[in-house]
Amino acid sequence: MTDTAAIVGGGVIGGGWAARFLLNGWDVRVFDPDAEAARKIGEVLDNARRALPGLSEHALPAEGRLSFHATMSEAVDGARWVQESVPERLELKRKVFQTLQAHCPHDAVIASSTSGFRPSELQACATRPGQILVAHPFNPVYLLPLVELVTTDANPNGMGTRAADILRGLAMYPLHLTREIDAHIADRLLEAVWREALWLIRDGIATTGEIDEAIRMGFGLRWAQMGLFETYRVAGGEAGMRHFMAQFGPCLSEPWTRLMDVPEFTDALVDQIADQSDAQSGAHTIRELERIRDANLVGLMRALKGQNWGAGAFLVAADAARAPAPHFAAEAVAQRPIDQPLETIARAIPLDWSDYNGHMTESRYLQVFGDATDRFMTIVGCDADYIAAGTSFFTAESHIRHLAEAHPGDSIRVTTRFLGGEGAKMHLFHEMRRGDTLLATGEHFLLHVSLDTRRPVAPEGEVAARLAAVARAHAALPRPDGAGRHVGQRT
Amino acid sequence: MTDTAAIVGGGVIGGGWAARFLLNGWDVRVFDPDAEAARKIGEVLDNARRALPGLSEHALPAEGRLSFHATMSEAVDGARWVQESVPERLELKRKVFQTLQAHCPHDAVIASSTSGFRPSELQACATRPGQILVAHPFNPVYLLPLVELVTTDANPNGMGTRAADILRGLAMYPLHLTREIDAHIADRLLEAVWREALWLIRDGIATTGEIDEAIRMGFGLRWAQMGLFETYRVAGGEAGMRHFMAQFGPCLSEPWTRLMDVPEFTDALVDQIADQSDAQSGAHTIRELERIRDANLVGLMRALKGQNWGAGAFLVAADAARAPAPHFAAEAVAQRPIDQPLETIARAIPLDWSDYNGHMTESRYLQVFGDATDRFMTIVGCDADYIAAGTSFFTAESHIRHLAEAHPGDSIRVTTRFLGGEGAKMHLFHEMRRGDTLLATGEHFLLHVSLDTRRPVAPEGEVAARLAAVARAHAALPRPDGAGRHVGQRT
Repeated sequence: MTDTAAIVGGGVIGGGWAARFLLNGWDVRVFDPDAEAARKIGEVLDNARRALPGLSEHALPAEGRLSFHATMSEAVDGARWVQESVPERLELKRKVFQTLQAHCPHDAVIASSTSGFRPSELQACATRPGQILVAHPFNPVYLLPLVELVTTDANPNGMGTRAADILRGLAMYPLHLTREIDAHIADRLLEAVWREALWLIRDGIATTGEIDEAIRMGFGLRWAQMGLFETYRVAGGEAGMRHFMAQFGPCLSEPWTRLMDVPEFTDALVDQIADQSDAQSGAHTIRELERIRDANLVGLMRALKGQNWGAGAFLVAADAARAPAPHFAAEAVAQRPIDQPLETIARAIPLDWSDYNGHMTESRYLQVFGDATDRFMTIVGCDADYIAAGTSFFTAESHIRHLAEAHPGDSIRVTTRFLGGEGAKMHLFHEMRRGDTLLATGEHFLLHVSLDTRRPVAPEGEVAARLAAVARAHAALPRPDGAGRHVGQRT
Repeated sequence: MTDTAAIVGGGVIGGGWAARFLLNGWDVRVFDPDAEAARKIGEVLDNARRALPGLSEHALPAEGRLSFHATMSEAVDGARWVQESVPERLELKRKVFQTLQAHCPHDAVIASSTSGFRPSELQACATRPGQILVAHPFNPVYLLPLVELVTTDANPNGMGTRAADILRGLAMYPLHLTREIDAHIADRLLEAVWREALWLIRDGIATTGEIDEAIRMGFGLRWAQMGLFETYRVAGGEAGMRHFMAQFGPCLSEPWTRLMDVPEFTDALVDQIADQSDAQSGAHTIRELERIRDANLVGLMRALKGQNWGAGAFLVAADAARAPAPHFAAEAVAQRPIDQPLETIARAIPLDWSDYNGHMTESRYLQVFGDATDRFMTIVGCDADYIAAGTSFFTAESHIRHLAEAHPGDSIRVTTRFLGGEGAKMHLFHEMRRGDTLLATGEHFLLHVSLDTRRPVAPEGEVAARLAAVARAHAALPRPDGAGRHVGQRT
């Protein structure tokens, strides 16, 4: 039987919850008096449908049924989970809980999205206090895993565990806190940064843009993969957390922030933190953590390069400054003759390109050959501007031979020869080497297409002329070993 | 001529600077009285050589020459850049600057890695104050782009720009601040979080591990790609930053942190922030920013899945719970007969898999087919445990036909048939479909190898028996269209 969730309050947060449940196969019943609620939730859902399913390597279950209801009593009918996301006013929330509890199943979880109130404050005037807990998510709710799940002694035994299991079924990460505090954990940290940032702006030290760069070009990248303490444990080196705190602790008494109520830095506090850090991270040596951190950072920054955003956009620009001039560029014609296979790639293999066998993942060979094809296209004049003007080459067919293993850190080169082409067709052959060792070959058949009609169309002008020049120069080269093979052919 | 950098103080930070300069082709001269300095810098360099070069799509220049020197005067000889990273004691740093300035070229940049002192404090007792500035990096220095570059009126015109250009040449991101403040920007924000975290631990609300999860499962992922203000601008929706502040501003007066000295939330401050946010992010609508954010988050989380770490490890585990039982599993035998092509992939195409042509990137087809091969291996019993025991299948050769375009969000299925195999050989044919549309085919030739000798060896036992069963069942299937093709073959 399909599970049912009731969403009470359908803004950005409620809409995000609705998307989480729906895309994981739950039926969702929404109550929100806002006449625009259906449109608003629809917009969140559009974003979620685009982003969430592809996060998994498996198809999600069939989407549940979404319905809107005029009353809370109707919305909560048969609900196993009721998520309250109404505005942050305690009296309003208490009233909503009273209405909910008059109608919803007694064994449903009633969860509040509150970012500020403690669960005991929400339970205070309730008919059945033990049914209510806090499940505080983070925007965008349909993508970020974190949910702060806060329970009290009023909740029956096992209710926190049951709620956590349901959240994990939505691929959300429940951080279960059993000691309540205003604003839970994450928002206290965020609030601390927010206040400090407001001072920096008010005092004219930095702009919003500068503060954001100070975050996302530096510690923001660290915090996407290790938090505050594990990061500092690594920074402390082999001596670990105690050493780090001995260095950094004294700063607490210096005027580094405008906010001056600081905990006393006692031996007991240092021991408490060091012991917790051992329990958290002690399974790895500092050297191992450094290497894990570095592989994570390389993976994160390369992901951002793929999006051309933030640190990734900066690195794309840095790369552009390093790229050698292509063969037809005025400054390169003499040094890089076209009568030999053209060098299209010279690079190191990134840390995040290896697989469980410990060598470069199969698909990364095609990525490198794809980049080599792109570079060949740039060389003959089919560059970003050309593509923006409406035509490009699409790959129709590829053949790859894996001849020797490659590993992260290896320096590799790809040379490319033009095997043939007429009209819209282009036939390329790439050879990937580490030093003199041939690692792989890639044979590719491409079509020059109109990006408007998606149909083949012959290139013209400068691109056609350069292709003809390369074709003439490469016609004299011997046919490469392995060209024209089919898969499984005996040598 | 090769540029030369002098590294004064060679700990984790000095070593990270040494690696940045060396790997970008500079000669590096180190002074550090620590007898262990060469070993320590060597360890940082090993990490950097593994991680940094693969961050770029182009080969870095040839590594510079590293030398160690017994005196500061020798180390700074001919240096264009002098980086000071000695312990954070003002008197020590001032003494070091006096020695440096007695010997280094007058046009060298002398940069301090200080995280706390203002440049004017460092310049105060110097022979040539205008030569000194702050260039504060972030650990690991060889990977993270951010450098807080802080100058004063004592620095000659253009010196900040010159220093920024040099840093950009190392692929570092200089955030140039011209109004100095203790601890610059990033460390003030970090300090605010550190203090709040210490309270949470001291009061027994959360452990170091829980605080780290509250960061890296939630806002840490956001901050890797947008900072504080751009994130909140998006959260504010179309109404933007003013709307967000109207909602969130009042929290400043609630007891959400232990640190209570807060700036007054005036209209002037709100205007200042809203205007700066417009200047920073106004080129994109909120809807665009949401989609950029989501694609970034998907890319970041998928990168962490590749490393099986943090949010990525959590999502890998969530996926495992979703995976259908493979065909030979007891609970699947009846529902999933093996006498048809086996379903090996059912998934959605992730947001970060598209290229500049707007369709699924070429290499992702091979990634999906590689995953299909992995799944086929799992089906026949060649799973993680089997591989850990010492044998696996390696792909020797692949042929891909691209038949129709695929786009992010599309639901795709791959079915796999066994075309043949004897001894260590295995010949597979994958078909990728969206609904009934055949998008691509992948034909693959694999060898079963010993992970010890890296040589072919025939599978035995359960894996051999299951392969034989699939072979018998698939022998009756018609030969698939496109099998045995070579690239460019006429149809």
